[in-house]
Amino acid sequence: MKIAVLGTGTVGRTIATKLVELGHDVTMGSRTADNENAREWVAAAGGGAAQGTFADAASGAELVFNCTGGGVAVDALRAAGAANLAGKVVVDVSNPLDFSHGMPPTLTVCNTDSVGEQLQREFPDARIVKTLNTVNQAVMTDPASVPGNHTLFISGNDAEAKKTVEGILGAFGWPQYAILDLGDITAARGQEMYLPLWLRLMGTLGRPDFNIAVVHAGQN
Amino acid sequence: MKIAVLGTGTVGRTIATKLVELGHDVTMGSRTADNENAREWVAAAGGGAAQGTFADAASGAELVFNCTGGGVAVDALRAAGAANLAGKVVVDVSNPLDFSHGMPPTLTVCNTDSVGEQLQREFPDARIVKTLNTVNQAVMTDPASVPGNHTLFISGNDAEAKKTVEGILGAFGWPQYAILDLGDITAARGQEMYLPLWLRLMGTLGRPDFNIAVVHAGQN
Repeated sequence: MKIAVLGTGTVGRTIATKLVELGHDVTMGSRTADNENAREWVAAAGGGAAQGTFADAASGAELVFNCTGGGVAVDALRAAGAANLAGKVVVDVSNPLDFSHGMPPTLTVCNTDSVGEQLQREFPDARIVKTLNTVNQAVMTDPASVPGNHTLFISGNDAEAKKTVEGILGAFGWPQYAILDLGDITAARGQEMYLPLWLRLMGTLGRPDFNIAVVHAGQN
Repeated sequence: MKIAVLGTGTVGRTIATKLVELGHDVTMGSRTADNENAREWVAAAGGGAAQGTFADAASGAELVFNCTGGGVAVDALRAAGAANLAGKVVVDVSNPLDFSHGMPPTLTVCNTDSVGEQLQREFPDARIVKTLNTVNQAVMTDPASVPGNHTLFISGNDAEAKKTVEGILGAFGWPQYAILDLGDITAARGQEMYLPLWLRLMGTLGRPDFNIAVVHAGQN
């Protein structure tokens, strides 16, 4: 599949690399066509990897990963162009972390809204799916690095779009039973507001490669 | 131990009942001395159970459970009286849920602050310990109702106070290994901001008797 990965940070590069390994044609998008992180990534990833502007990446893609920061995601997708997103599945991996006031980071949006909801409102013809934002990038593409059962949340207004994304998550290594569909995109609020707890857990455990498992009676 | 349970809702009554079963002398506190919920609870709980105002309950107590709503917790503890809380362990079980704008509830405080931090600032001589707010009241006092390993978070500035509370949690049925100390009271932000995800999980699973387990490599 032709996939755009918007964002050249660690999350974007990790996901883009995994997608290339899985045989997809991936264009990494950034504000400029010659972004240095993206150039290094293309050189390392080899065949199937390309780079361009946000619009370059989105225009040729069948599916888009938003791996930009949550605080700039709306702007990045505006640069990608609403027409280039229309009808497409947009996987929103972002978290609205604001490090500008020191540690711990606060959220640029929460409580009554979320990045996932902002994107769906701003781009009503895109099919926003929120997932992967509750785990470290190493766990995103290698869920078996965390042993046993653990849970990945997914939300979005479009059932078919979520099914498509669940297929990709399956290729990343997430078993079907680990993926918990929380319903429509308003669930993104809960997925994003989990981040302060996640950050505290990372500090307490001294490691980012952990996850949570939802546990109740009657499971297998 | 002489324990005050502030709040006469389901959480307060569930915790107070468990504490009486464990042999503690429990006074349930409310705004008025003759609260009807508290009177019913006293009649049902039998020996070791009493009721009174917030101040009545706190003044005679060695340890205090705050089971009032997070949005009114500061006011409730002011009514209890700073002098009646000074030096005492105050277990803050509250969540700042605001149902006044419809469903899902929002939080009255989050992102840059939390109820746990508000209480510690307002009552600097009290030893605030945040815990239990991430599970339904049935799970609070019967953790084995959720099978397998699952995690309870605790935070607070006073290590001795946390140890005291861990003893009570142990008597409630929480194994030592299930209790994860997140550090000082600023962790309450993460514990409380988990609630929107918890509420969404309750809706998705169709049940409140679940919990999350923190999972990583190297655990037993």
